[in-house]
Formats: sequence, structure tokens, C-alpha cells
Amino acid sequence: MTTRQRVLLLGATGETGGSILEGLLAADQYDVEILVRPSSASKQSVKDLVDRGVQLRVFDLCAPQSEITSALSGIDILISAIGPRDLLQQEALVRAAKEAGVKRFIPCAFITIAPPTGAMLLRDEKEEIYNEIKRVELPYTVIDVGFWHQISFPSVPSGRVDYANFGPDATIHGDGDAPNILTDLRDIGRFVARIIADDRTLNQFVYTCGDVLTENEIFGIVEELSGEKIERTFETSQQIEQKVEDAVSDLAQNPDDLTKRMAVWIAQYNHSKYVRKDNRPDYAKYLGYLDARELYPDLVPVSFRDYFLEVLDGKGKRPYMG
Amino acid sequence: MTTRQRVLLLGATGETGGSILEGLLAADQYDVEILVRPSSASKQSVKDLVDRGVQLRVFDLCAPQSEITSALSGIDILISAIGPRDLLQQEALVRAAKEAGVKRFIPCAFITIAPPTGAMLLRDEKEEIYNEIKRVELPYTVIDVGFWHQISFPSVPSGRVDYANFGPDATIHGDGDAPNILTDLRDIGRFVARIIADDRTLNQFVYTCGDVLTENEIFGIVEELSGEKIERTFETSQQIEQKVEDAVSDLAQNPDDLTKRMAVWIAQYNHSKYVRKDNRPDYAKYLGYLDARELYPDLVPVSFRDYFLEVLDGKGKRPYMG
Repeated sequence: MTTRQRVLLLGATGETGGSILEGLLAADQYDVEILVRPSSASKQSVKDLVDRGVQLRVFDLCAPQSEITSALSGIDILISAIGPRDLLQQEALVRAAKEAGVKRFIPCAFITIAPPTGAMLLRDEKEEIYNEIKRVELPYTVIDVGFWHQISFPSVPSGRVDYANFGPDATIHGDGDAPNILTDLRDIGRFVARIIADDRTLNQFVYTCGDVLTENEIFGIVEELSGEKIERTFETSQQIEQKVEDAVSDLAQNPDDLTKRMAVWIAQYNHSKYVRKDNRPDYAKYLGYLDARELYPDLVPVSFRDYFLEVLDGKGKRPYMG
Repeated sequence: MTTRQRVLLLGATGETGGSILEGLLAADQYDVEILVRPSSASKQSVKDLVDRGVQLRVFDLCAPQSEITSALSGIDILISAIGPRDLLQQEALVRAAKEAGVKRFIPCAFITIAPPTGAMLLRDEKEEIYNEIKRVELPYTVIDVGFWHQISFPSVPSGRVDYANFGPDATIHGDGDAPNILTDLRDIGRFVARIIADDRTLNQFVYTCGDVLTENEIFGIVEELSGEKIERTFETSQQIEQKVEDAVSDLAQNPDDLTKRMAVWIAQYNHSKYVRKDNRPDYAKYLGYLDARELYPDLVPVSFRDYFLEVLDGKGKRPYMG
């Protein structure tokens, strides 16, 4: 490429979007702008990015399509790391991106490997957007990442890793032997910066991966590195299934209640990961995903082991805490 | 392979299934059986196949899943050319095939290239089955074929090709310049016999193709070969869209009326082929399809020109006429 690609990122102040922004800036090969909704333009987190020299495009995803199309003028690559509650707002963005001639759209995927429909409500909504993309023939890449190291380690009895733990817990789900694709949150952006410059990934599904570990293996690593014996609790497959059923029925009674919706997401993540055992490389391959480790053998992602050493060293950071 | 693969075909007495049966028998490398529903077992068309030495497995797709699983015992490859009205009956078959250890399932695709959802009701229902396949991780191949030569030629003024024409007509749809993937009905089985033995097509979408022609090109070939000047009628994109709208609204008022459903299928085929211009190789590639012409360069399919010469020679056969 002779000219730098102009990348517009939606969701830059979120966890996934933040990782992507860092990855794009570090790659030093893109002109990076961020898409900010009017309601967020005055947020401190946005101002911090402006102070770092990132350019803003402020517009509303609910604006008429022609306005969104104009606002996307000059953008080569559009990356959406929109929040899970707003996924369907991407529909207008897809149509506008097609109109505006965007050369590649990265819809908000960035989750675990799961079937297109029927296993996770969160995935079902993403599929609706993928189908809209295909309907309008917009060039795209879907990037999934498995689960993050940052939310995949158990608590230890001393409590010394709880400062970095999203929900301190030491539960083995099902038999604990389901292999899970894990990516360090910080590596998402490093992978994305490579994937979006790569012709091999155009109109493809790709997954990133730092490690593939079962819960039993994770608990083993954590015990080995911490020197502490974890007091495991156990949740059976039946209990996990029951939690899904309860959460789905709760949501049906309160379809607009975001906390009920989040409860479904969490219950279905556990069901998909530990009962269906979806989040594994061979299922990803079956579903047609390319493996980013094979595409970029020179990109060495952070292993779970190295990540957890950082946590023990006091360098962890609890996600979703700003 | 050291042993012959055992193939079970559903829909062998239909047009697509009949082509597949001939292709499988001609390949002489499979043990071929046909799946017949109890209601069809006494049909003459089935008896004719039995007389040719084809083995039957008679069972009901609405039977309990365990019964279907048993009935699939020993089957390596299951091919479904079920009729369009019964597509969703394949759901039980998918689950049973997974249970029975079927090594490859060919769901009923065999239509034009179109987006996964939202353009054709017929395609939407097929997508539900593909999603069920992916949910249970059943090995599969989706095979689409474009439109058949046999239903893609116009009438000529002398009426001499009408004997073979499904619906004598000489309409140019839209601008007449939409490229369309065409396959001779008889070639479907030849392609299928190759595709199902090929590791490269496992868990992939593939399309067959004998020709890619626009309506204007088809009319040109027909005029050249027949020496007759066709009196074209024209249907605009707006008229095609209106027909879809009317057919969809008619069906909504009579959702169980099969003729209303067929009217939607036909209207949406025209819309997808001629307004959206979906049924073309570059859209197929975008959607992730493999091209059977590239996979099997030694398989020379019947061109539209050669097919139409047969029709002029009195050797055509009107589809769906038994």
C-alpha cells in the first residue's frame, strides 16, 4: 500500500475498543480516528484520547442513513467495538458503510467461538448484523477472540489476586475439561492491526488466541504459580443449564431490563464454554474460522501463565473499572 | 478409500434428487440407497427405482429421533433433496444424522446464490437447517447450483420449443444484464458425485456451474440457434419488486396456502436474480463458496448452447412432468 489506510473505530473507550485503539496506534501504519456519539463527546475518557492526538468523528448512529454515509466519507476501514446492548444499531452503519465505499468493515464480534444461532443470545444478535453485511455485500472481517485471560483466573485463598479479578470466584464448571480459547485483552488490538491489513482475511472469520486451556489446567497453573491450594466449588452441567433456563425466563418477563439481559449473556457464556464446549480451535475450524496464530506466527501473544505472573506481581488491572 | 461409501438419498423421485441418483449410480463408487417415506413407498416412481436395483430405507421423518437414528445406521453420506415445502423436516434428520455418526450431510440447498437471509424465503428456511447443522457440529457440504438450463430459455415465435418449456415466456427482467449461474439439471448429479468424495469440500459451500449468462445473452443464443426473432416483453425492476410485495402480503393472509408460498418463491427468485443480481460467481465467492469448475476442471458440464441445441432437436424434456 502506498497510502496509509484511514481507520475509524467505534467504541474506543470500552475494553475491547481500547485494546484495538492501542494496537492501531502502536502499529503506526494507519490514520486512526474514533467515532463518538454526541452523548459521549464530552466524556473525560474521550477528552483523554483527544489529548493524545486522536481525531474524533462525532455522529449519531440513529441519524438518517445519508448523514451517516456522509460522516463515513474517506474511511477505508471501519471497526465496530460497540457495546453488547447496542449491537443492532450497527445495521444502519452497515448500509451507510456500503454506500460510503468502506473497503472493510469489522463488525462487533470479539467474543467466544459459538454457533451462528441458538446457543447465545449475544451471538444471535451479532449474526443478524453479519447477515445484513452479506445482504449488502460489504467487505468484512469477523474477528472473535475467545475469552480474556483477564476474566479467566480463579481467586486464591489469600485473596491477593482479587484486586484484578472481575468476580472473585473459584468454580469449576461441568467436568472442567472443556478446552477454551483465551486471548490477553491487550493482544486483541495487536491482532486486529495485523488482520485488517491482510488480504487473506477479507470476507473471512478469524479468531485470535493466546492459549487454549481447560479450567482444570488454569487452576493448576494458578496453584503452581501462587503456591496456594484453591478451594474449588463445582457447578454441574445441569446447574448451568438450569441457570440459563432461569435467566432466559426472567428476561422474557422483563425484556427491556438490561441486568436481566446481562444475566442471560453470562449464563449462556458458561453453557456454551463448559457444557456445549464451543470455544475450542477444532470447532472454530469447523465453523470456517482462520486461526490468527497460523496467519501471524511472528506475533507472540501473551500466554495465560505470563499474564498471571503479572497479576501476582501486582500489575493486573480489573476490567470494566475505567 | 478402501471400502465403498454408503450413500442414502432423500428425494430421489424429484428433479434434483433424480439427477443426483443418476450421478451417484453412474459414478459406480458408492453403495446407494434411497430414503422413502411410508406414504411414497408404493409410488410407481419408487417401484421403478427398485426394479433398477436401488435399495430402499423406508421411514418417517416425523418419527421419534431415536427411530430415525436407527434407520440411518451404517450410512456414511446422507443427501437430502427434500421438496421445498418440507425443508424444516430436515431438522430431526440433522440431529439423528449426528447421533448416527453420519460422516457428511448434504442438506437440501441446490438453488441459486443468495444471501443467507432476507432475500428469499426459500433460502431463509434452508439457512435454519444450516444453522442447526452447525449447532450440532455435523460434517456437511452445502451445494448450490444456480438456475437450471431447463428453465432458463425463452419461447420462440414458432412455438417449437414450448414442448420442453416449463412456462413458455419471453420476458426480459430488469435490464437483462444480470449474470446468472446456470447448471444443466443432468449435471447436478455428476457434480454431486465428485463433491461428496472430496475432502476439500467438507464443511464448505460449493456451487456448480455450466454457464454464466445474462438474459440478453441467452436470448441472443436462442435467436442465433433457432433463426427466429424473439418478441421480448419487459418487466421492470419496480414491477418485480411489486410482485414480491404482493406475493408476500398474499401469503401473510394465507400462510398455509402452498400456491401462495410458491408464488413468493417465484417472485423472490426473479428479484434475487434480476434486481439484486445475486446469482453470480463473484457474489458466490464473497459468500465463501468454492467453485466446482475450479475443483473439477476435467468435468465438462453441458453448456447452455449445447443444451438448447438438444431442445431444438426435439430431445428436451419439460421438468416437473414426471
